[in-house]
Amino acid sequence: MSRYVPSRELVERVANGEIPAIARMISRAEAGLPEAREALAEIYQRAGRAHVIGLTGVPGSGKSTMVCALAARLRAGGSKVGIVAVDPSSPYSGGSILGDRIRMTDLSGDPGVYIRSMATRGVMGGMARATMDAVDILDVAGFETVIIETVGVGQDEVEIAKAADTTVVVSAPGLGDEIQAIKAGMLEIADVHVVSKCDRSDAQRTLMDLKGMLTLGVRQGKNSEWRVPVVGVSSYDGSGFEELMSALERHRNVALHTESGRERRVAIAGFRLTKTAENLLMERFARACAPLTLGFAQRLHRHDGDPYSLAGELVAASFGKERS
Amino acid sequence: MSRYVPSRELVERVANGEIPAIARMISRAEAGLPEAREALAEIYQRAGRAHVIGLTGVPGSGKSTMVCALAARLRAGGSKVGIVAVDPSSPYSGGSILGDRIRMTDLSGDPGVYIRSMATRGVMGGMARATMDAVDILDVAGFETVIIETVGVGQDEVEIAKAADTTVVVSAPGLGDEIQAIKAGMLEIADVHVVSKCDRSDAQRTLMDLKGMLTLGVRQGKNSEWRVPVVGVSSYDGSGFEELMSALERHRNVALHTESGRERRVAIAGFRLTKTAENLLMERFARACAPLTLGFAQRLHRHDGDPYSLAGELVAASFGKERS
Repeated sequence: MSRYVPSRELVERVANGEIPAIARMISRAEAGLPEAREALAEIYQRAGRAHVIGLTGVPGSGKSTMVCALAARLRAGGSKVGIVAVDPSSPYSGGSILGDRIRMTDLSGDPGVYIRSMATRGVMGGMARATMDAVDILDVAGFETVIIETVGVGQDEVEIAKAADTTVVVSAPGLGDEIQAIKAGMLEIADVHVVSKCDRSDAQRTLMDLKGMLTLGVRQGKNSEWRVPVVGVSSYDGSGFEELMSALERHRNVALHTESGRERRVAIAGFRLTKTAENLLMERFARACAPLTLGFAQRLHRHDGDPYSLAGELVAASFGKERS
Repeated sequence: MSRYVPSRELVERVANGEIPAIARMISRAEAGLPEAREALAEIYQRAGRAHVIGLTGVPGSGKSTMVCALAARLRAGGSKVGIVAVDPSSPYSGGSILGDRIRMTDLSGDPGVYIRSMATRGVMGGMARATMDAVDILDVAGFETVIIETVGVGQDEVEIAKAADTTVVVSAPGLGDEIQAIKAGMLEIADVHVVSKCDRSDAQRTLMDLKGMLTLGVRQGKNSEWRVPVVGVSSYDGSGFEELMSALERHRNVALHTESGRERRVAIAGFRLTKTAENLLMERFARACAPLTLGFAQRLHRHDGDPYSLAGELVAASFGKERS
């Protein structure tokens, strides 16, 4: 597939589950190419069958290893599994945290598992927009489960994990204070809590802490149809994954058939729309201001104006007077 | 100072080094209040004397402890030290990673040290904008050294650390693979490398790795007047801090008197201006689209349109037809 394939044709190939077409369509979504938008609109209209699982956890929580173990079990049950990994992009190399997915090689020969790292480079709203497009592409391609794996640092990363049918937060025993504190903001978004590395003796304490927190009433009243379970797993000895898969399936059923589930889907649509709109607006601004920025920067540097007045001027000059 | 103080009066109080005025002015910057902009513009015009140090490192690298130890030594040398800590905001609680600054209590009785955690809640560009305003406020208040401490995860966080006179990247021995990989994108921005926890036996290897990487030519040719040093410190036994302070001072002198230093300051001005403009634009958009979002989200949810077409409509509807 080295020739240029029109986006419309690509959609049909995606729908046939052709891996090269999936890869290419995601790349076009990631690049934010305007000519891909019609195809992505078509993809959106066809999507909606997959169970989308958002999975997040702090660095060092063993997320990737756990995702692999989970994917292998879902595969064994006959489900095709797509994994979209969201990494904060590095400022120069564009490299990604999870670029080195050595631990995922067990799955790499299996056409029923597709893993994609999203490397978005900073256009605001772009990461969320492209990630949700990638999820739709995998959905249309016939992947019954799509896992969005994000590192649980940064508001966008946490919000993307939340924009799923089921949100899983992974904790691990034995992480340092600074890491534990990052976690605080993530705990409330969990539909299912997972404690990884449960072969370790100190995992019991992490399990108890989470259960204690839930008993204390965090998240109560939000969705009374669902009690957030805490599941311990070990990717090392394989324990806990049956229970986890059962919890995911149960949550999906609740989410599909309750009013709070419907409200959540509308909220996700709102999040997606806002991110797409922000991305659109920022792209327009980036294009329009690019030829002007150096001149304005030099003015600011020599104190010919202040950041606020010059920023106002830059927006006005970029979008024309009528938009200031 | 419980009555409302007009921003103009607040500027004078900041310039007198009054701590409550500093705190209040930073809060107004953080909130992005339009009525604070004139005062912040005035602050900008008066700023420019402090040595601004951007310091970043992965979670668990011992940044906060190291910053405290560094601040204590700078204080001992007679310098007033401001610390601006940039935390990814949590999605619900607005809590911050470094909110619990227990380790900083050694410094808490000293009026010559001011520590502020920035808790910005997601308006795009807002964190960078507010952080740079906070730095200026401390500068004008007479703090000779201002340290911007950011967690080295997330593009914005890394970019803010780069937007300083001198950028310090903190590494630590013995962190896991996932953590080490996050670091990759940060290494190239260092003007000074610090390896913390050098009382540990495995720190030598981290030092050698960094030195080896620099020998291999990373960052060569960018600024030939400056050779990036690698400094080992231990907050536990106090070693290495004299060498670190000397490296910071030497870098500052080089940065102040070279063409590449001047170019960097223009680039920082460009970054600041872009972030301020983005923030301005996103605030306008957020205000304008708020009453429309639910209706659009419901349309997207029932597939009456796709994310791209509806996002375009939302932008157009928010800013009026002439701005679509």
